[in-house]
Amino acid sequence: MVRPEETICAPATAVGGAIAIIRISGTRSLDICEKIFYPSDWNIKLVDLKGFTVVYGEIRSADEVIDEVLLTVFRAPHSYTGENSIEISCHASQYIVRKILELLINHGAVTAKPGEFTQRAFFNGKMDLSQAEAVADIIASKTSSSHKIALNQMRGGFSAEISGLRKELLNFASLIELELDFGEEDVEFADRKELKSIIIRVKELADKLAGSFKLGNVLKNGVPVAIVGKPNSGKSTLLNALLMEERALVSEIPGTTRDTIEDTIVIEGVEYRFIDTAGLRETSDILEIMGIKKTHEKIDQASVILLIDEITDSAESINKRVQAIREMIRESEKRLIILINKTDIASEDQQTELKRKLNLEDKETLLFISAKEKSGLEDLRLRLREVVVKEKLSSDDVIITNLRHYEALLRVSESLGRVISGLEDQLPEDLIAIDIRQAIHYLGEVTGEITSDEILGNIFRNFCIGK
Amino acid sequence: MVRPEETICAPATAVGGAIAIIRISGTRSLDICEKIFYPSDWNIKLVDLKGFTVVYGEIRSADEVIDEVLLTVFRAPHSYTGENSIEISCHASQYIVRKILELLINHGAVTAKPGEFTQRAFFNGKMDLSQAEAVADIIASKTSSSHKIALNQMRGGFSAEISGLRKELLNFASLIELELDFGEEDVEFADRKELKSIIIRVKELADKLAGSFKLGNVLKNGVPVAIVGKPNSGKSTLLNALLMEERALVSEIPGTTRDTIEDTIVIEGVEYRFIDTAGLRETSDILEIMGIKKTHEKIDQASVILLIDEITDSAESINKRVQAIREMIRESEKRLIILINKTDIASEDQQTELKRKLNLEDKETLLFISAKEKSGLEDLRLRLREVVVKEKLSSDDVIITNLRHYEALLRVSESLGRVISGLEDQLPEDLIAIDIRQAIHYLGEVTGEITSDEILGNIFRNFCIGK
Repeated sequence: MVRPEETICAPATAVGGAIAIIRISGTRSLDICEKIFYPSDWNIKLVDLKGFTVVYGEIRSADEVIDEVLLTVFRAPHSYTGENSIEISCHASQYIVRKILELLINHGAVTAKPGEFTQRAFFNGKMDLSQAEAVADIIASKTSSSHKIALNQMRGGFSAEISGLRKELLNFASLIELELDFGEEDVEFADRKELKSIIIRVKELADKLAGSFKLGNVLKNGVPVAIVGKPNSGKSTLLNALLMEERALVSEIPGTTRDTIEDTIVIEGVEYRFIDTAGLRETSDILEIMGIKKTHEKIDQASVILLIDEITDSAESINKRVQAIREMIRESEKRLIILINKTDIASEDQQTELKRKLNLEDKETLLFISAKEKSGLEDLRLRLREVVVKEKLSSDDVIITNLRHYEALLRVSESLGRVISGLEDQLPEDLIAIDIRQAIHYLGEVTGEITSDEILGNIFRNFCIGK
Repeated sequence: MVRPEETICAPATAVGGAIAIIRISGTRSLDICEKIFYPSDWNIKLVDLKGFTVVYGEIRSADEVIDEVLLTVFRAPHSYTGENSIEISCHASQYIVRKILELLINHGAVTAKPGEFTQRAFFNGKMDLSQAEAVADIIASKTSSSHKIALNQMRGGFSAEISGLRKELLNFASLIELELDFGEEDVEFADRKELKSIIIRVKELADKLAGSFKLGNVLKNGVPVAIVGKPNSGKSTLLNALLMEERALVSEIPGTTRDTIEDTIVIEGVEYRFIDTAGLRETSDILEIMGIKKTHEKIDQASVILLIDEITDSAESINKRVQAIREMIRESEKRLIILINKTDIASEDQQTELKRKLNLEDKETLLFISAKEKSGLEDLRLRLREVVVKEKLSSDDVIITNLRHYEALLRVSESLGRVISGLEDQLPEDLIAIDIRQAIHYLGEVTGEITSDEILGNIFRNFCIGK
């Protein structure tokens, strides 16, 4: 997959819009472009241009003008890839983009593979592997929290933590290895007690990072929410009320498509995805259509369950339904929020009375709402938010969102656990050294100091063309 | 709609891809961007930068980093709009694009209306109206011929012709008006005979341009083709054979979506659209499903009719079908191509024999093919091509593709026709002058020397945001 001798090209923008960008990177970028680009100022020679300069001119195929374009020159190492690079900004016509790519290829460029620009940036030391992975996350992020984490990761926040841990372990390892070199002499360069405390601290940090994955995953992929309840309890009205307000907020912002936010709401930068709402929105009765089995499946997928009942329901029947769901989620960390709907048709006293008769557990939340009159929705949002994050996220918190990193950190923690018990049991240095080396290896996998073709293949395969 | 005092902003790329571009144009472009952009080199000040320079840095909202971006500065008048402009190249995340637009708007920019960047280019004299219209055509063009015409128009080829005509008329008009100023004195500054010959020449040119509209429209919008024939004659096999080869050609080119070329083929840069092929491709029997009425409708929409018969059909039955279609298209300029399919199951002699027995008219084309074995398809392509353009298009030919221009040119021609007969009938100067002024007016509408809010509204409403 690595082929640094080739000059690659690809469209970097999607089909549609007003402008299209074509990216070229590699040693021959300027030479190749020189053959098809004619600057409007004839005195300008591409190969003489400094980096970060824009030139106006024409792309021509033989005598035919293909387009009038802006061409930006980047000089190694001051480019995204670290190589000589060019960006051609042309009219966003499929015909023009295709034609320019054809010309570039005819003059010696090759089509870039998905993620190849970023992969080159990694190979040329412009970013480490976890930063490269964050580039794809940034593009995919839809909410402020997922964006913030990805950007922090791309800017090296996470890498700094990992490199810090790795450095401490490397120090430790070198002392141990030194002892091994001296063999039978029974010297101790590394103070066992001090080193044990360092290992414990590094393990705690690795555990803390691994522990952030659950939250990170939620922030990256959204919180799955199930809405359940008996027919006509107001499920579809509630969903529409929540989505409607969201739509109103979003539609103020120009130039965004709204397709992707179907049935999701964002609260303080966190996305909540309503599961399996297709039937719900049309017929308002999920139980009737899908039956109890489907409800089970839905609750299985959810992190939060919204049970909707009516203020006019008997406490007994509500308690029964709560009990049923409680049993389904008993062993899990799923959260149950009980919504008593239709407060608009009841008095305050009825609410107090009902509240008194319900047998709820501490971790269950009770809210009185009117989906129809949109009252109580603010409380619901607050509680949904609390379910995920108790406190405000600090922008300095490093949170991991990547399964690969999570698994590597778990392995680091395991290895270090063995080191600690090894030290306690006074195992021989060479055995302890093996586990330390393993922990160092796994940390290196995260940042890409240790890589394999398989890891790289997996990572960059999911990138888009042109990135 | 005109609001040059505002600084406008809009995304210029579609959702998706690796890179997104945000465009800003107007007097305050640099001031506004300075408030949200932090160059990585702290010594750089945006407002001091020359045009055609790129800077790397961060977009920040208060303390929060939104993205690392490239920012390109353009200085009036050397920009697309002719105003100070900025292009921000960021990661193609919807969240980031939205956030940057919000920041720009918070600092005083306003959302651009569709086509507003191009409209500003028009108002600032960077292009005339027909050139501005060509920008939208360029983006929409899918084939080399439609692209070539649009690009030629954007680069002013058409405008030059129109301005030439208008100049000649203005000269003529000024002489006539001079005569009118002298009132009763009965002087003749304009030699009637010479002037009549000039008017005739200008009218001929206007007619020629208007006459190119039919071809221009075909090149821009494609040639509608109907495939008809009795059940199992091989209609779907033919269609698939034609489309398949096309797909193979197209799929070699990276980064293009293939959705838009559904059921079209391109021959030497001209697009042929197969009409109403949905049923055809699935069931291979359009006549049976849709009946004779649908076939009529289909033939009505088409410029070319492909009638498919089989080599084993009797000459009598084929003649009957040809006669039926011939009657439907009698009064039109539609072209009929008769394809005798399944030559793979017949001998040469059978072909010669059948050919002898068919009663075809000169303008009808007979071709023997085997859709199954893909033989004869090259001939078919050649004939389809001939149907549209007899000779190769010269790249200098000005061809109009725009209904608005066509109608204006027809009015120019009408007015000039009245001038000619007025001169012949020796009508008074003031009456002749009115028609000349009208012709000048209509020519001015094409290039935008004469405009109205309505014309401008119609034109730019169909542009995309960010163009």
